[in-house]
Amino acid sequence: MKLATVSADDGTTSAAVLVDGLWRALPAPDLGTWLQGERETDPGEPLTGWAPVNPLPSPGKVICCGLNYADHITETGRDLPTHPTLFAKHADTLLGPGEEIVIPDDVALDWEAELAVVVGATLRGADEARAAAAIAGYTVANDISVRDWQKRTLQWFQGKAWDATTPLGPIVVTPDEVDPAAGLDVSCRVNGETVQHANTRTLVFGPAVLLAYISTFTVLRPGDVVLTGTPGGIGAAMTPPRFLADGDLVETEIDGIGTLRNRVRLTPSI
Amino acid sequence: MKLATVSADDGTTSAAVLVDGLWRALPAPDLGTWLQGERETDPGEPLTGWAPVNPLPSPGKVICCGLNYADHITETGRDLPTHPTLFAKHADTLLGPGEEIVIPDDVALDWEAELAVVVGATLRGADEARAAAAIAGYTVANDISVRDWQKRTLQWFQGKAWDATTPLGPIVVTPDEVDPAAGLDVSCRVNGETVQHANTRTLVFGPAVLLAYISTFTVLRPGDVVLTGTPGGIGAAMTPPRFLADGDLVETEIDGIGTLRNRVRLTPSI
Repeated sequence: MKLATVSADDGTTSAAVLVDGLWRALPAPDLGTWLQGERETDPGEPLTGWAPVNPLPSPGKVICCGLNYADHITETGRDLPTHPTLFAKHADTLLGPGEEIVIPDDVALDWEAELAVVVGATLRGADEARAAAAIAGYTVANDISVRDWQKRTLQWFQGKAWDATTPLGPIVVTPDEVDPAAGLDVSCRVNGETVQHANTRTLVFGPAVLLAYISTFTVLRPGDVVLTGTPGGIGAAMTPPRFLADGDLVETEIDGIGTLRNRVRLTPSI
Repeated sequence: MKLATVSADDGTTSAAVLVDGLWRALPAPDLGTWLQGERETDPGEPLTGWAPVNPLPSPGKVICCGLNYADHITETGRDLPTHPTLFAKHADTLLGPGEEIVIPDDVALDWEAELAVVVGATLRGADEARAAAAIAGYTVANDISVRDWQKRTLQWFQGKAWDATTPLGPIVVTPDEVDPAAGLDVSCRVNGETVQHANTRTLVFGPAVLLAYISTFTVLRPGDVVLTGTPGGIGAAMTPPRFLADGDLVETEIDGIGTLRNRVRLTPSI
C-alpha cells in the first residue's frame, strides 16, 4: 500500500491510501493517528485534488542514526561503527513535501538524503524479527543540517533540530512493496545536480536492527520515525565545502517511494 | 509559589500549590497541563495525603545541557565551552520522586545532579530578558546516565534516554523564591555519602541564556524542561570508576527546592 497524509486547499487533512492512482480517505486526520488506531484499510471517498503533506505531523519520537553508510563514514574520516550512532529530533523539526526550508541566512546549510522507517507497533526489548514485523512502512527524509551549529559542540543536536527543516514524505510505502535490504536507490539533487547517490543495501545497520537496538532502552510507538542515516556526498565534505543558497531546490528521492522537493529560503538572521 | 503534580493513593493526579504546608488543588490534572492553560492560582480543596509525583509527565521537549559547570568540564578533560552542548531526551525518560530506577544489571549506571528549568511561555527567537521572564520555575533532576552506552558512539543519546531513568521533582519553585544566579547548592548523595556538591552560581550558561539560545532554533512551550548540566563528582570520573549498584539510594538535592530520592533496582539483562 501507498499511504499518506493528504491535505485539501483549506488545510483539512486526512490519512489516505492510493487506489488506482487516486487518494482515498482512511478514517483518521493523519497517518500517525491512523497508525495508532484500528487501521481500517477500506478506502473511503476519493479525495480529488488533495495532495500529500508531512505524513506524520506529531510523532512522539524522531530518532536518527548517523554514520550508517560505509562511504559517508569514510568521507568523515571515521572507522566503521560497532554500534549505531543515535540522536533525537522533535516533531517540530519535520517539514512536508513542497514546503520551503526557511532558515537564517548566516548558517551553513547542508543536505542529508535518508530512508526513514515508520514504526507500526509498540516495541520495547524487541529482537530483530519482532522489530521487522513492527515496520509500518518507509518514506523519504532529508536530515537538513546546520553544519556550523552542529560543529559548535560535541553533540550534534543544535545543528539537527531547527524547526521545520527536516522534509519527510511524500508518501509511506508498506514493506510488502519495498525492501531496503534488497536495495533501494537513495539520491539527493540540488538544482538538478546529483550530489548524493547510494543504495540502502549498503546500510551498516538496517531498519529492523535499528528498531530493535533502540527498543532496548526506550519504547517505540506507532507513528514514531527512525531516520537511517545519509550516504556520502554531503556539502561539508566537498572541497571547497558547499552549502545551500537561497532559492536552491533540494530533491530527495528513494526508488519505489518517491521524491521530496523543497526549496531553500534564507531569511535575514534573527 | 511551590507547585507540584500530586497523586492520591488511587493514582489520580492534580496540579497543586503548597499553602501553609498543605497541597491544594489547581484546576488541571498535572502541572504541565496547568502551565499550558489559564494558570488559575486560587487554591482549591486541600489534597490531604496526596504526594508529589513527576511534576511534568508529558513535556513536548526535554533538552539537556552538558558540560556546564567549570569543575565537571575539568574532570572530563575539556576546555571551557563557547557554546552550550545540547542534547535531547524524550518524556518517557522522566521518573518521579520516590520511584525506583529500574535498569538491566549489565550497564554502568552513573549519577548527574542537575537544576532543571521549567518553561512557562512560548519562546522562539527570544533574547535573554524575554527568556528570563518565561521561566515558570525550577526543579531538581538527576540525568542518570548509562555510561557504557553513552560512550559507544560520539552521540550521548543512547546513554541518556533509557525510559524512566531521569528523576524529576519533587516540586517546582517559582523564580521569585529561588535564584540560580545568586546561588543554589546542588548535591548528590549515594547511600548518604555526598558525591557531588556545587553551586548554580558557577554555571557557565545560566537558565535564561540556555532558553534564549535554544529558542534560536526551536520553539519552547509551557511545560517543556531544560536540564542545566551537572557539576563535578560523577562516578565515571572517579579512580577507579564507581557505578550504581542494586539497592543504592540516590538523593539529589537543591537548596530551596527539595530532594529527590530514588533507589536503583537492577534487573536481569534483557
